[in-house]
Amino acid sequence: MSGVRHLVSIDDLSLAEILGLFEAAKELAKDLRASSHLCRGMISASLFFEPSTRTRLSFESAMLRLGGGVITAADKLMLSSSKGESLADTIRVVAGGYSDVIVLRHPSEGAARLASAYSTVPVINAGDGCHEHPTQTLCDLYNLWIERGHIEGLDVVLSGDLRYSRTIHSFAYALARFGANVICVPQPGFEMPDYVLQRLREEFGVEPRRADVTRLGDLASRSDAMYLTPQKPHQLSLFIDPKGKDVERVDALYMTRPQTERHPDGARSLENYVQLGKLQLAAEPLRDAVVMHPLPRRDEISADLDSDPRSIYFKQAARGVPIRMAILAYLLGALPLQVEGEAAEPRYHAVQLVGNLCTNPTCISRSEARHVPPLFKLASRHPLRANCGYCSHEFAFALVGCTTTRHFHEKDSPEVRKIRPDHLVFFQDLAQASATGFAPAVRPSVSI
Amino acid sequence: MSGVRHLVSIDDLSLAEILGLFEAAKELAKDLRASSHLCRGMISASLFFEPSTRTRLSFESAMLRLGGGVITAADKLMLSSSKGESLADTIRVVAGGYSDVIVLRHPSEGAARLASAYSTVPVINAGDGCHEHPTQTLCDLYNLWIERGHIEGLDVVLSGDLRYSRTIHSFAYALARFGANVICVPQPGFEMPDYVLQRLREEFGVEPRRADVTRLGDLASRSDAMYLTPQKPHQLSLFIDPKGKDVERVDALYMTRPQTERHPDGARSLENYVQLGKLQLAAEPLRDAVVMHPLPRRDEISADLDSDPRSIYFKQAARGVPIRMAILAYLLGALPLQVEGEAAEPRYHAVQLVGNLCTNPTCISRSEARHVPPLFKLASRHPLRANCGYCSHEFAFALVGCTTTRHFHEKDSPEVRKIRPDHLVFFQDLAQASATGFAPAVRPSVSI
Amino acid sequence: MSGVRHLVSIDDLSLAEILGLFEAAKELAKDLRASSHLCRGMISASLFFEPSTRTRLSFESAMLRLGGGVITAADKLMLSSSKGESLADTIRVVAGGYSDVIVLRHPSEGAARLASAYSTVPVINAGDGCHEHPTQTLCDLYNLWIERGHIEGLDVVLSGDLRYSRTIHSFAYALARFGANVICVPQPGFEMPDYVLQRLREEFGVEPRRADVTRLGDLASRSDAMYLTPQKPHQLSLFIDPKGKDVERVDALYMTRPQTERHPDGARSLENYVQLGKLQLAAEPLRDAVVMHPLPRRDEISADLDSDPRSIYFKQAARGVPIRMAILAYLLGALPLQVEGEAAEPRYHAVQLVGNLCTNPTCISRSEARHVPPLFKLASRHPLRANCGYCSHEFAFALVGCTTTRHFHEKDSPEVRKIRPDHLVFFQDLAQASATGFAPAVRPSVSI
Repeated sequence: MSGVRHLVSIDDLSLAEILGLFEAAKELAKDLRASSHLCRGMISASLFFEPSTRTRLSFESAMLRLGGGVITAADKLMLSSSKGESLADTIRVVAGGYSDVIVLRHPSEGAARLASAYSTVPVINAGDGCHEHPTQTLCDLYNLWIERGHIEGLDVVLSGDLRYSRTIHSFAYALARFGANVICVPQPGFEMPDYVLQRLREEFGVEPRRADVTRLGDLASRSDAMYLTPQKPHQLSLFIDPKGKDVERVDALYMTRPQTERHPDGARSLENYVQLGKLQLAAEPLRDAVVMHPLPRRDEISADLDSDPRSIYFKQAARGVPIRMAILAYLLGALPLQVEGEAAEPRYHAVQLVGNLCTNPTCISRSEARHVPPLFKLASRHPLRANCGYCSHEFAFALVGCTTTRHFHEKDSPEVRKIRPDHLVFFQDLAQASATGFAPAVRPSVSI
Repeated sequence: MSGVRHLVSIDDLSLAEILGLFEAAKELAKDLRASSHLCRGMISASLFFEPSTRTRLSFESAMLRLGGGVITAADKLMLSSSKGESLADTIRVVAGGYSDVIVLRHPSEGAARLASAYSTVPVINAGDGCHEHPTQTLCDLYNLWIERGHIEGLDVVLSGDLRYSRTIHSFAYALARFGANVICVPQPGFEMPDYVLQRLREEFGVEPRRADVTRLGDLASRSDAMYLTPQKPHQLSLFIDPKGKDVERVDALYMTRPQTERHPDGARSLENYVQLGKLQLAAEPLRDAVVMHPLPRRDEISADLDSDPRSIYFKQAARGVPIRMAILAYLLGALPLQVEGEAAEPRYHAVQLVGNLCTNPTCISRSEARHVPPLFKLASRHPLRANCGYCSHEFAFALVGCTTTRHFHEKDSPEVRKIRPDHLVFFQDLAQASATGFAPAVRPSVSI
Repeated sequence: MSGVRHLVSIDDLSLAEILGLFEAAKELAKDLRASSHLCRGMISASLFFEPSTRTRLSFESAMLRLGGGVITAADKLMLSSSKGESLADTIRVVAGGYSDVIVLRHPSEGAARLASAYSTVPVINAGDGCHEHPTQTLCDLYNLWIERGHIEGLDVVLSGDLRYSRTIHSFAYALARFGANVICVPQPGFEMPDYVLQRLREEFGVEPRRADVTRLGDLASRSDAMYLTPQKPHQLSLFIDPKGKDVERVDALYMTRPQTERHPDGARSLENYVQLGKLQLAAEPLRDAVVMHPLPRRDEISADLDSDPRSIYFKQAARGVPIRMAILAYLLGALPLQVEGEAAEPRYHAVQLVGNLCTNPTCISRSEARHVPPLFKLASRHPLRANCGYCSHEFAFALVGCTTTRHFHEKDSPEVRKIRPDHLVFFQDLAQASATGFAPAVRPSVSI
C-alpha cells in the first residue's frame, strides 16, 4: 500500500500541505465548473455506514465538479446485506477496481484508520464515530484562512456545548497546531473536557488560563471562560496576568448546537441554551468577528443574524465543496500542490504480542479484532501514556515490555525511558506479561 | 436572489415560455444522447423528503442526458440526520456550491415556494404535498401538444377519481389556461371538488355545464358528466344549450387511479372502480382519442389496452425525460428559448404584520414559521378572497387593513377595493387588528 | 423488441460470445480509466428491489468507467411508493427514455425474464431470487480463464454449502458447459442437490462418480466427495474406475459461505463449518490451486490466507468491474466482439392456452400473472419434462396436448414425441384439458 496517501486524521497532513490545499481550494472556488477535467474517468465511493447526508452530498458534489463519477452506499441495509462482512473485506473489495478513492463514514472510532490499512486507494475519513472528521476541520480552518488571510495568532471564541462536540475538539486541536488562540465560552455545564485540555497541553503546550470576557457582554455573561494559547512566541496581549482580562477583539465566534443525543439527560439540556442574536453580537469585541457554525443549527443562532454580514455559516458550508475538491484531487494525484508534503514522522506503532488494550467499546479495533493488530500512538513519554492508534482512547496498562530484551518493567520505572517506541509493548498485569513470554527485568522489583 | 428563475408552479411560466419549452423538448427528444454537452460541469441536487422514485429517476435521467451530474438525498433518514434542521437552512446549504439546481420533493404544501425564497440556484418543485407538481402537468400538456399539434380547443375527458387527484386538478387548470375544454366523467362519488371549480371560474372564466355523454357508452354510463370550457371566444359546438349534449369527438382521455391513500374509507372505494378496456374504448367518439394516465396504474386500465395504438401512457412517461431536460437546461441558462419569457405580473404579496393566517396544518408556512413571512395571492378582488402564497389554501379573515393608512375595514366594505394589493393586510378579528396597531376606519362602523 | 439483447441467463450468451467478452474485459482491465468514451451519453438504471450493495456498486462503477451515467432505485420504498405497480409497467417506464440499459435485482425468480419481455432496452439480470445471477457466474469463469488461460478440462473443487448456494449451482452448470470438471467436497449435510445433478446430467451429460479425495487432506476429511465430468472426450486421468481415486492436482478451489438464511435450522448449521486455513491448503494437490470465494465471507476462510498468493478472492471481486464493463458495452452496442454471437436456438416456448402450471410460490409468473403468458423450456423430451420459462422449476402435468390437432395424450404416451415443441401444451388433469377444448387422442385410452 506504499505511496497511497490517506486522510484519516488531519495530522496526516503537514501544515505546508494544508496551506497548499487552501491555496488550491481558493483557486478552484473561483469557478467551480472549470475543473471538470481534473478527475475525469475516476470514481469516488461513498461508503456511509451511518447517515450523514450533508457530508455525503458535499463530497459527491466535489467529485462531480472534478469530472469524476460517484458510487454510493449510504444505507443501513448495506450492513445487513453484507451478511456480517468485516469492514476490512468491504474496503478491499471497493478499493479493488470499484473506485479510485473511498470516502468512509462509520459509527466506530478508528474505522477509517483500519480501512486505510487495507485499501489500495486513498481513504478519506468522513467521520468515525465520536473521533475525527478531518475534512470538517479543514473546512473550518479554510474559512478562517479565507476570511482572515491567516490563522496563526487569531483569537477564536468557541461557544455552546464544548463538552460533547467532536467538531469543537478537533477544531481546538487544529487551532492550537496553527498557533491560534482559543477562548472557551461554554454553556454552563458543558465545559471543554479534561482529556481535550490534556492533549492540548501535551501536544501543543497549551495552558488554560482564566479569561475575563466581561467585554463580550451577553454572550459570555453566564460562563466561566477560559483562554487557551499555544506556547509559541506570539502575542499574549489580550490578557493581564494573573487573571485573564479584557478580551478586546475576537476574530471568529464558533457556535455549536447542543449535542443532545449524547447528553446524559437528553433534551432537557436544551433549556437555557445560549442563543446568538443581534444583542449578543452587539459587544464591541465582536464587531469584526465572523460567526461560524458547523450546521445544522437549531435555535442557538437566531434567524435575524442570517443577514448580518458577519454571519458566514452558510458560506462556511459552501466552502466545503472547494476544499473537498482540493483534497480529492490531491489524494488522487490530479492536483500537485505547490508545497510538497513533508515526510511525516511515524506516529503510530504496532504491538502484536498481546491482546487489544483498548477499552473503548465502540473502537473498531474491538469489533474487527481478527483483522487488525493493535496499534498505539504515544501520547506522552514521561509519564508514559499511549493511546489506541484507532480511536485515540488512552490505554490502561501497568507494565511495559521491550520486544528486544523480552523484559518488562513497571510503567513508571526509569528503565522504560530507554525503550524505543517501536519496541514498546504494554501489559495489563503480570499474568499477561508472563503468558506472553516476558520476564521481569533484572533489577527492579515487580509487585503487582 | 434576483435573476434566478424557479419552477414552483406552472404559473411561474408564461404560455409563450411553455410552448418554447415544448419546442425545445421536441428537438431534444430526437436524440436523447446528443445533448450531453449542454450542462456539463453542472450539478442537480435531488432533495426528496418523501419517496417518489419515478419522478426522481426522470429528473436524474434528464440531468445526466444533459451531461450534468446528480447528487441525491432521497430517504427519510435525511430528515432525522439533519437533526431538526429547517428546510430554509437545508436549501441554503445545498444551493451554496453543492448544486446548480435543486429538485425538491416535500410532503408539506408550499415547501418549494419557501425553498425558492432561500435559494441562489433554481428550485424545481417535484411535488409539494397535495399542492402542485408542475413538471408532471407540463409533461401531460406536452404529450397533448405532441399528439395533437396544439392544445387550445381540444376536448379532454378526465375520468376516474377526480376528487382526490392532485394531478387532475393541476391538469384541469392548465387545460383551462391553454383554452382546452374539459369533460369530467368522474367515478361516482369522486366528482371534481368545488374549490377546483371555483378557481376554474374565477381564474379562467370556466362555467361548468351538464354534459350529455351517452355516446361515450360504457365509459360514462355511471357518471354525471360535466363540461368545462374556458370563456374565451372559441367553438362551443359540442353542446346544445341549455343541456349539454352529444360529446361527439374526444381528443384525449385522461384516466387516474383511485387515490385510496386519501380516501376516507380507504381501499373500499376500489370496488366498482371504472376499468378501461377494449369495450370502453369502442365508443365512436373515442375513436381517435389518445389514452393517458400519469402512472402507476393499478387495474383501472386493462393490460389488453397496452397494445392499442391510442394508448400512449408509456410514451407519456417517457416524454417526461425530454420535457424535464428542456426545463433543467432552460433554468440553468443552458438553453435559450426562441420565445422570450414575458415578465410575469406579481402574483404574490407579502404581509408581515401579523401571524400566519393559513389554516392548512400541512402548509410549510406553519412548520417553518420562523423563516418565512406569510405570503398571499389574491384569488378574487370582489369579493375579496386571498389564498396562502405557499399552499394556496384560502385565508380566513374578517377585517382588512391598509399598511399605508394603518386603518382597517370589514372585509366586505367598499373601502377595501381601494387598497393596493401590496398594501393589504388581513386580520382574523378586532383584537388582532388592534394589537397590530391598526385603527378602525373613520366612517364605517365595525361590529365584530 | 427485436434486436435487443438481454442477459437474463448465462445461456443467453453463446460460448463464443462469452470468450469474446473475456477478451474484451482483459483489454479493458489494462486501464480502467481509458474507456470513458465508450458509453458517453448513455444511462444505466439500477433497479434493485432488494438490497445487494456489492453487486450494485460493481455495475455502477462499470458504467461510470465507460463514461455513462447511472440512475439508481435501490430501496424497498421503491416498491411501496410505486403503489402496487407491476414490474412490467415499471420496466416499460424506465426503459422508455429514462435509461439505455436496465440492471435488475428482484426477489422473485424469473423477474428478469419477464422484464426482458417488456423492455425496449437491454435487461441485465443482477439476481432474481434463488434463480440466476449470470454476471456473477461470468465473473467467476472470467477469473478462472484469466488465471489458467482456459476453462475446458480444469479441475475445480467446490467446497462448503453446496446445497443452498445459488452461486455454486450456476457455476457448476457453467463449468460443465465449458467442459471443466467439478469435484464436490461439500460440508456434510450440505451436498449438491439432486435437481442440480439431474440438470447436469440431462443438459451436459455429466455423471456423478465417487471421488477419492484423501490426498486433499484436511479439506476433504469430513466429506463424501463426488466427481462430475462432462461426457466429452477429454482426460479422465485423475480417476481409476470403479472408485474415483487420487485427485492429483486441483486448478481452483471455490469456497462458499453457509447460506444460513436458507437453512432450515438457521445459524446452528454454522457449527463445525469447514474453515480454510494454511493447514487445509497445505495438501499437495492444492499447491497451485487458486482459492476463490464469491464474498462476503464469514469465517470459512481464515484471515491468514489473505496474503497467500493463491488467494484470489479479492482479485476475483475486482475483476467484476471489467467483465461488467464488457457486458454493458456489448449489450449497448458500444463494443463489437471479435467473435460474432451465434444465433441461439429457441429454448423457450410459450403456451397460452391454460393457466400457469408453475408451482413455485415466488415465481414472477405467479405474482404478475396478468402480464405474462406462461413460458416453458424443455428439460427433457424422453421422458417429457418441462420447466417454467421464468423460474426454471419443473412443471407438474399429467396430460400433453398438441395445439395443431387439439388432441391430448398421457404424458408418457409415445404420441407425445411427435408433437413439435412449440405446439406442446400441458394440462394438470382431464378437466383442464377438456375445459380448454382439447379432446382425447383417438387411439390411446386415457384414464385419469
